[in-house]
Amino acid sequence: MPDREPMPFARWGAIDHATPLTPQARALVRQALGIEHPPAAATTLRDVGLPRPQLPSGFLSDLRELLGPGGVATDDASRALHARGRSTSDLLRLRAGDLGDAPDAVLRPGTAEQVQAALARCGAARVAVVPFGGGTSVVGGLSARRDGFAGLVALDLRGLRRLVALDTVSRTAELEAGLLGPEAEALLAAEGFTLGHFPQSFEHASIGGFAATRSSGQASAGYGRFDDLVVALRAATPRGPLELGRAPASAAGPDLRQLLLGSEGAFGVITSVTVRVRPAPQASRYEGWRFATFPDAVTAARALAQDGPLPTVLRVSDEAETAIGLATPESVGAEFGSGALLVAGYEGTAADVERRAADVATVLTTLGGTCLGPEPGEAWRRGRYAGGYLRDALLDEGALVETLETAAFWSQLPVLYDAVRGALADALGRSIVLCHLSHVYATGGSLYFTVAAPQTHDPLRQWDCAKRAASEAVLSSGGTISHHHGIGRDHRDDLPREIGDVGVGVLRAVKDYLDPDGVLNPGALVGEGT
Amino acid sequence: MPDREPMPFARWGAIDHATPLTPQARALVRQALGIEHPPAAATTLRDVGLPRPQLPSGFLSDLRELLGPGGVATDDASRALHARGRSTSDLLRLRAGDLGDAPDAVLRPGTAEQVQAALARCGAARVAVVPFGGGTSVVGGLSARRDGFAGLVALDLRGLRRLVALDTVSRTAELEAGLLGPEAEALLAAEGFTLGHFPQSFEHASIGGFAATRSSGQASAGYGRFDDLVVALRAATPRGPLELGRAPASAAGPDLRQLLLGSEGAFGVITSVTVRVRPAPQASRYEGWRFATFPDAVTAARALAQDGPLPTVLRVSDEAETAIGLATPESVGAEFGSGALLVAGYEGTAADVERRAADVATVLTTLGGTCLGPEPGEAWRRGRYAGGYLRDALLDEGALVETLETAAFWSQLPVLYDAVRGALADALGRSIVLCHLSHVYATGGSLYFTVAAPQTHDPLRQWDCAKRAASEAVLSSGGTISHHHGIGRDHRDDLPREIGDVGVGVLRAVKDYLDPDGVLNPGALVGEGT
Repeated sequence: MPDREPMPFARWGAIDHATPLTPQARALVRQALGIEHPPAAATTLRDVGLPRPQLPSGFLSDLRELLGPGGVATDDASRALHARGRSTSDLLRLRAGDLGDAPDAVLRPGTAEQVQAALARCGAARVAVVPFGGGTSVVGGLSARRDGFAGLVALDLRGLRRLVALDTVSRTAELEAGLLGPEAEALLAAEGFTLGHFPQSFEHASIGGFAATRSSGQASAGYGRFDDLVVALRAATPRGPLELGRAPASAAGPDLRQLLLGSEGAFGVITSVTVRVRPAPQASRYEGWRFATFPDAVTAARALAQDGPLPTVLRVSDEAETAIGLATPESVGAEFGSGALLVAGYEGTAADVERRAADVATVLTTLGGTCLGPEPGEAWRRGRYAGGYLRDALLDEGALVETLETAAFWSQLPVLYDAVRGALADALGRSIVLCHLSHVYATGGSLYFTVAAPQTHDPLRQWDCAKRAASEAVLSSGGTISHHHGIGRDHRDDLPREIGDVGVGVLRAVKDYLDPDGVLNPGALVGEGT
Repeated sequence: MPDREPMPFARWGAIDHATPLTPQARALVRQALGIEHPPAAATTLRDVGLPRPQLPSGFLSDLRELLGPGGVATDDASRALHARGRSTSDLLRLRAGDLGDAPDAVLRPGTAEQVQAALARCGAARVAVVPFGGGTSVVGGLSARRDGFAGLVALDLRGLRRLVALDTVSRTAELEAGLLGPEAEALLAAEGFTLGHFPQSFEHASIGGFAATRSSGQASAGYGRFDDLVVALRAATPRGPLELGRAPASAAGPDLRQLLLGSEGAFGVITSVTVRVRPAPQASRYEGWRFATFPDAVTAARALAQDGPLPTVLRVSDEAETAIGLATPESVGAEFGSGALLVAGYEGTAADVERRAADVATVLTTLGGTCLGPEPGEAWRRGRYAGGYLRDALLDEGALVETLETAAFWSQLPVLYDAVRGALADALGRSIVLCHLSHVYATGGSLYFTVAAPQTHDPLRQWDCAKRAASEAVLSSGGTISHHHGIGRDHRDDLPREIGDVGVGVLRAVKDYLDPDGVLNPGALVGEGT
């Protein structure tokens, strides 16, 4: 299997998928946000200087001996591509020519045993090590603190990309951590199965990253969150390898799988996961439904989540997002009508798709929905991975664009929605705030916000203030600081509000035990340790 | 709400529910197992001496000041009722008159704050403390090691039994830890809801115990395991209180709820849980189905678990269990026919019950099942909580009777089934081994074994040998050491096989942090700590 093309410098995704705004959309954005001149930005690596690498003498030759000559890269392109993730702040820093925290080298192990051995060498040399899959973190998960360490390396897991085992009776598959979403789906499709995990980052993010950050896909209503799909996992830790998960469910003490899921490379490196898989769907159907208001549509989604049946995909845009039609760069500014758009998608056998769609239609009609037919659903489906490209196009125009997300129990969602919108509007002034209900559960749902404003002269600080205001609104309204993006460094200071000081202390105790030298992704999740 | 009647001495359940064997059943058991004389046994507390209590001076008066005069009990009856759980070994020791590890006193806090304060006093005085709910552990979860401590107390949580909050929009309820199953259901039923958690211990076990041991109910196919139902929890730990769970799902780091679930009182005392609840069912229907063989019936259950629809209750008895009709003490020895009995139960709205039953019937008929109508299903339902009483009756006759359970992925179940049956037969000689598939998931299921043999002169040792052989069979066949009973002390030495030495080290690190004096249920789950 060939390597995927790495992401272009300071932009999302693959070069050939980039889609500039149409002249009409560009004019509309400039007018709506009052932007006059797009900002200058570094656009290639040649515009940016990299810091001199500094690693203990002998470290690189030692690692080359372990991983082979191709297993260690120190060229500028490799280092730049492994600097940071793809949050708007990450991109703004890169656009400003700042590569100060690029790793000194990139390690490319090919096996779990090499990962384990590489961790031992990093610990012994006190070199900080950032596990790196697809590089799509949007919460600062990949920007390791280097102070106090003898060096900083990225541990690129793309060498681990096998389908290790497929159990067609139990319907489980062991997938190595470095597989990207499409690669994993291709391997499973060849055997007639699907994983069904399709987050917006699907095309570029890795299986290990999905696990380490508790990713949730757009089809979670039908297939479940990634942490729900994991039945077993293997991780390399400085303390030794961990193998967890002998059964679909167990009462053999606390569930340590759930301690590694969401550990963001701070406890160990997940090298493979065994996931639940399903027969590849034979049929699919996507539809749009219009409701008079966002609360009406949310109530309908809640009815489906609590009493069934559930579509495979279920999402509801608020009035602002519905009006803008935020699906693809081409469609920005197109008129998608009033009210709130609900998208329902069905995948499975032909009979199952037909039956569920009919049953859902009965519920939605009863609750005030009007079926708009397949086009709004298919439009959403076509544009489901386009958000990152649209952000690049808008950043080019001088807009500050970012997303944030949360989840709460159903009774809290109205308060949470108002609080976050209000906080962003207060912090940013002239701005556009859009929202959709992105994931549903019996007891609650996830809200996903997209915000756009004209960039100030210091857009990093501008976003920092807005993000802080939004996070405060989330936490004081009873929401979780992240439903599917993770903690990274951007949410780290909010973690005590989420799990308490005692909860943070538990995480630190686990990190101190598993990573006694503290070299694993330092600064992520729990910060400095004790 | 009045206190429930405590369990009778050295027996399961409530006195007035005890059901002796019929003369015919008694004769059959004696003949089948070759028993001539039932053993003598202590049957009341008067037959047994309690050890002198030993607690640091001032400790009891300090606790009485904290909890009130009714909050501390030192009488023999209270101490005896809080000695150990209800495994067969626990009962055999009690029947032999051994109350050597009875606690020195029983603490009865009435609030979470009192629990927190009591833990601080126990830690300061180095008094070991065993959290105690319904007292139904069958894995040695309540027999604390007292060596090295200044004393041993049971912390009875029956004073905490409020429905703290009910959120009818989110369909969640906060239940205090000391509520027994029927009490929690009564409180919810008054509001039109049900929790749906019905393990065999339902009538006597507590909400906190369900959480601390990862209990799974007989209706888990429809309602989910208890750990699936918990969306938030509060725990008192010596390090301070923990409040976990702000949303149905979160990516805010590892899921610490899953670290407290299954912690068996070794990390802290769960004082309340917020659980998913559902509208109380309007209708129910239970049916029996016959398959030619156990593997045929398991294949049918797997089809329902993987492709749906799922009944609310789904269980399959193997040929031996089907032949014996192990439902109620009265029915032992009745002829239930050949093949394997599958019981399917449906609860919900009338329309939902009818539709699911029809859809399931189509699948089961296609896969070779024959519908036996409602009677076998209703018979199972009537006897669903009777197992403990039947065991008492058989112990009275001189039979050694115990159960054990495991779970594994579907592809492993046939090997696991054969291995455990073989190991028990080899270890016990003349014996009866029965099995049912008790819980199903998309990727696997749980096997529940019941074993009976004539007691030797040392039945404790007899069971210990058989249990060791069965556990070895479970672990070497890829099963988990417990699907829903827990670790306690009986499975503790097997835990490294389940989660590895590094996994055990993680649990010890968490315990050392949360319980620095090591006073919480010492010896359970992870043993001594570092």
